[in-house]
Amino acid sequence: MTDTVSQPTPESTSGGPDGDFETLAALARVQVDTPSSHVMHFGEDEPIEMDCGASLSPWQIAYQTYGTLAPDRKNAILICHALTGDQHACNVHPVTEKPGWWRLFVGPGKAIDTDRYFVICANVLGGCMGTTGPASVNPATGKPYGVDFPLVTIRDMVRSQAMLLDKLGIDDLLCVVGGSMGGMQVLEWAALYPERVFSAMPIAAATRHSAQNIAFHEVGRQAVMADPGWASGRYLERGTRPRKGLAVARMAAHVTYLSEGALHQKFGRKLQSRAAPTFSFDADFQIESYLRYQGSTFVERFDANSYLYVTRAMDYFDLAAEYDGKLARAFRGTPTRFCVMSFTSDWLFPTKDSRAIVRALNAAAASVSFVEIESDKGHDAFLLDEPDMFSAAKGFIDAAARDRGVA
Amino acid sequence: MTDTVSQPTPESTSGGPDGDFETLAALARVQVDTPSSHVMHFGEDEPIEMDCGASLSPWQIAYQTYGTLAPDRKNAILICHALTGDQHACNVHPVTEKPGWWRLFVGPGKAIDTDRYFVICANVLGGCMGTTGPASVNPATGKPYGVDFPLVTIRDMVRSQAMLLDKLGIDDLLCVVGGSMGGMQVLEWAALYPERVFSAMPIAAATRHSAQNIAFHEVGRQAVMADPGWASGRYLERGTRPRKGLAVARMAAHVTYLSEGALHQKFGRKLQSRAAPTFSFDADFQIESYLRYQGSTFVERFDANSYLYVTRAMDYFDLAAEYDGKLARAFRGTPTRFCVMSFTSDWLFPTKDSRAIVRALNAAAASVSFVEIESDKGHDAFLLDEPDMFSAAKGFIDAAARDRGVA
Repeated sequence: MTDTVSQPTPESTSGGPDGDFETLAALARVQVDTPSSHVMHFGEDEPIEMDCGASLSPWQIAYQTYGTLAPDRKNAILICHALTGDQHACNVHPVTEKPGWWRLFVGPGKAIDTDRYFVICANVLGGCMGTTGPASVNPATGKPYGVDFPLVTIRDMVRSQAMLLDKLGIDDLLCVVGGSMGGMQVLEWAALYPERVFSAMPIAAATRHSAQNIAFHEVGRQAVMADPGWASGRYLERGTRPRKGLAVARMAAHVTYLSEGALHQKFGRKLQSRAAPTFSFDADFQIESYLRYQGSTFVERFDANSYLYVTRAMDYFDLAAEYDGKLARAFRGTPTRFCVMSFTSDWLFPTKDSRAIVRALNAAAASVSFVEIESDKGHDAFLLDEPDMFSAAKGFIDAAARDRGVA
Repeated sequence: MTDTVSQPTPESTSGGPDGDFETLAALARVQVDTPSSHVMHFGEDEPIEMDCGASLSPWQIAYQTYGTLAPDRKNAILICHALTGDQHACNVHPVTEKPGWWRLFVGPGKAIDTDRYFVICANVLGGCMGTTGPASVNPATGKPYGVDFPLVTIRDMVRSQAMLLDKLGIDDLLCVVGGSMGGMQVLEWAALYPERVFSAMPIAAATRHSAQNIAFHEVGRQAVMADPGWASGRYLERGTRPRKGLAVARMAAHVTYLSEGALHQKFGRKLQSRAAPTFSFDADFQIESYLRYQGSTFVERFDANSYLYVTRAMDYFDLAAEYDGKLARAFRGTPTRFCVMSFTSDWLFPTKDSRAIVRALNAAAASVSFVEIESDKGHDAFLLDEPDMFSAAKGFIDAAARDRGVA
């Protein structure tokens, strides 16, 4: 899978802490609609040390950039993607051929304006769009890692992104932005590298995964593992795939991304045909065929083991636990300014989770603004057309740029 | 499966509209802890006409009774069970050997007092505890029906219960009570046979299944069907069983039965062991092992095809649609008195669904009281120790008994 989506180019494999600005400028000129990603390789002498104790090498990270890095390098914004997202934030996706997942939010003239800012988005560690993950070849065996891949944490994802930025010669970021799991990474970035983060925008996020959310993830993992095609995680070697199990996992998760109100308004009890119900197990209701479609298309673009690993990373996330159970300690003395956002109808990462972030930031005397956006679209709102989110984000980022002296 | 749990007795197969009172009295003396159910058989000349157009015969219904039928037969209460419930409301379950699902609510001296009332609880049509369902033998083929079983509706379940009562010689009921899908049956009973229902108590119910609830059910069905052991519904013939798929379905459903708050309080992020997380896909978190246990025990007592049929019955339920889309028409001129109950933390059948019932009853000028019970236990609250539910139910039923002249 890695091979089909990542085509290393000479530009993308050079760079480094003292990287050539011309290389970065070349990167920055990458077309928004480029079908492949840049890949940064890390050799055997550049391992990533992971929270589980593993030292992974060699490894690589696949990423996209949009816009132009300013000569003073002060206009870089890092976007962190969510569970099933990837680096293709606002270019046509090479597998699905659909526009990027944050195309409404990021791009020329958008809230995150790629005419002004240099935007970087990298596939997470453990992912399946070019960054090293369970589908990658384990150099020790010559076979895909499968479930031998070390368990990944949100902090590992952030470390990998920091190593990428080191190689790109980007010391600090104007802003780190992300929704859902992306927001978890934003919080971890601010905690781990406060001096590298001028501003941070966690959207529809939480400092730890709730029991209910762990429960839904566990259902999804069990659905994948129940599929004989999963083959104890060795499906790539066996030539099978847990397609049905992964589709069920996606269906279960998808229900949680929408609000009850949105489901009611969009589908209600509408039937697929105008006629009476079929009195069968066919997809009589539109919501059923919608979910089946979501499941079946997902398996075309996502690796089942990556789904296990990335859901697990979210489950393990508990930022306070990394600081003796005191969340405010994660941010003590932080120079970063924050904008925290939530959506009224999001029951997966509800407003109370965002309020907990704000409380901790207040306790740490951090600069923080909080925006709860009225929306009936549920958790998925952060991916959708939410003008209030766009204007709040634009105001926050542009002010940060002004205060930082971005041209 | 049918054979192991239903042992027809001479008493249970006699009776009828003019049934012998001695027979009923004998039934009424059935011990609370009896391990098997009574079964009422309906011959080829007594088909049940189903909403899907099928005419099912022969068929049978398995049921339990508790308490003693009064000579004037005015003290009968029908309990309708929920999706994965059965007739074993307050006796030890013959398969799980655990106390009945409504033991806290029904029994000697309980809110539904079997010292005073004659309580009947029947396994639903399409179920798997003795009532004819997809695991039953299709007389036309000599093999289990499987997915050739006709699709069942809530109204079909109610019709089957009415036919049982006809045979038992019970013309009308002091009360019909049920939670969740049981509450749907209560509403259907009141709409279909108002003259047979003196009082009705739908708990944590709705007059129609929401898009979100259909969605969660569809996830469960797809999990079952994704299991190769399901064998296109022919697993009983093939000697396989979709154990893993059914377990996943149960896990997904179970999350929806609990409130986020209850999950947080009961499990939070507590680990199975006191030590650090294992950095694996083992059940690190207590919520994970709890869910896995729920899934694995469920498959020991429930038939996978029944799960498909009974979830489908709930999805199809839309009482207003049976009355030209006007819910109030379902209850116009009803002589039945109603007590509607909901729980504050139930997000599967939230209070607004119960309020919609109350509004329709008000529009139909029915006698109705409404109790929203403060509880953090989510949808499952109706099965649990909820003193406010017990006292409200006791007050309502005892008042109905008084007004009806029950001794």
